Amino acid sequence: MKEIIAVVRMDKTGATKRALVEAGAAGFTAFKVLGRGKLVEDKAVIADRKADLMARAYAEDDQETERLIEGFLDGTRLFPRRLFTVMAQDDAVPQIVDAIIRANKTDKKVGDGKIFVLPVLDLVRVRTGESGDNAI
Amino acid sequence: MKEIIAVVRMDKTGATKRALVEAGAAGFTAFKVLGRGKLVEDKAVIADRKADLMARAYAEDDQETERLIEGFLDGTRLFPRRLFTVMAQDDAVPQIVDAIIRANKTDKKVGDGKIFVLPVLDLVRVRTGESGDNAI
Amino acid sequence: MKEIIAVVRMDKTGATKRALVEAGAAGFTAFKVLGRGKLVEDKAVIADRKADLMARAYAEDDQETERLIEGFLDGTRLFPRRLFTVMAQDDAVPQIVDAIIRANKTDKKVGDGKIFVLPVLDLVRVRTGESGDNAI
Repeated sequence: MKEIIAVVRMDKTGATKRALVEAGAAGFTAFKVLGRGKLVEDKAVIADRKADLMARAYAEDDQETERLIEGFLDGTRLFPRRLFTVMAQDDAVPQIVDAIIRANKTDKKVGDGKIFVLPVLDLVRVRTGESGDNAI
Repeated sequence: MKEIIAVVRMDKTGATKRALVEAGAAGFTAFKVLGRGKLVEDKAVIADRKADLMARAYAEDDQETERLIEGFLDGTRLFPRRLFTVMAQDDAVPQIVDAIIRANKTDKKVGDGKIFVLPVLDLVRVRTGESGDNAI
Repeated sequence: MKEIIAVVRMDKTGATKRALVEAGAAGFTAFKVLGRGKLVEDKAVIADRKADLMARAYAEDDQETERLIEGFLDGTRLFPRRLFTVMAQDDAVPQIVDAIIRANKTDKKVGDGKIFVLPVLDLVRVRTGESGDNAI
């Protein structure tokens, strides 16, 4: 049994929810968090990459990318994100991860999100007291 | 050391909190999430089960069950739920899980919640820097 | 790969965020929870400790400590806390844990927070589909 955690764009909440239901997810929760992605540490790399990315965003008149790049490279700004937690039997993990990817992939440069898989030792259904895979 | 995650009804927040304190839980957090339970996939099964459950809910004039069944079977509606995270030493896990079950069991058909047990590798108390079981 | 969960004071949100960025955290989320720490079970110990702590808090005119002690010993009151989840490569865990401790240590008697380390089995970057350590 696994816990799949996905941190995605706020405006992908509905698409992710539908993707999870269609992929047969056995139950999930969603909530709003603030978050940020990987830190870019080398200041020269940041300056170069920023100039490059901003130029591209400007050329494409893509203000969301521009804003995301700013905050991403600045490193201390957090963005509202939707965090999903999904409980899954081991053999359902790949199809659920794929469904989350398909629902969240955009053509943006950054910010499509991350998916994490954590081990779960046991699961209990409160109503019946059943545990293990039967309780999913 | 384990992390116990419980997703329960909103109106069971107080009862769960008291149960955790009485069971000697070493610390916990609570927050509001949106969630849903297991997906029912076979459309014929859904139709049968829905007719049956709705008839029972109607006979018992149980509007909450009726509403829960609707959303549950519809599959895409999420309900506000309270999510608790509880940190526990290994040997305290069974009594805490039992306490959560006792506090959350109702005679409803669905929606009493789920409990998950995850492994925790280490724990640190910020104030003293202590780690491991001593820090719980 | 590990998930570091830190539950800290609300007014340490900014300091923790900056500490994480400076420690090179590869991405994190933050959200508001309600929480409490370890339960003190022996009523005689509670009475003794409370009298002692309250006297000290009173002598120091430290109302926050006084309030925290009350709730802490009462056992059922929850406090607003900031919960951070940080994803980290294994060898980055110690420096991130240290950074969180340094940002959150106060001279208060209780309430500086806890840090938990959980195993992560896999990580996927949605945009590229990369998984494993490369995707952090």
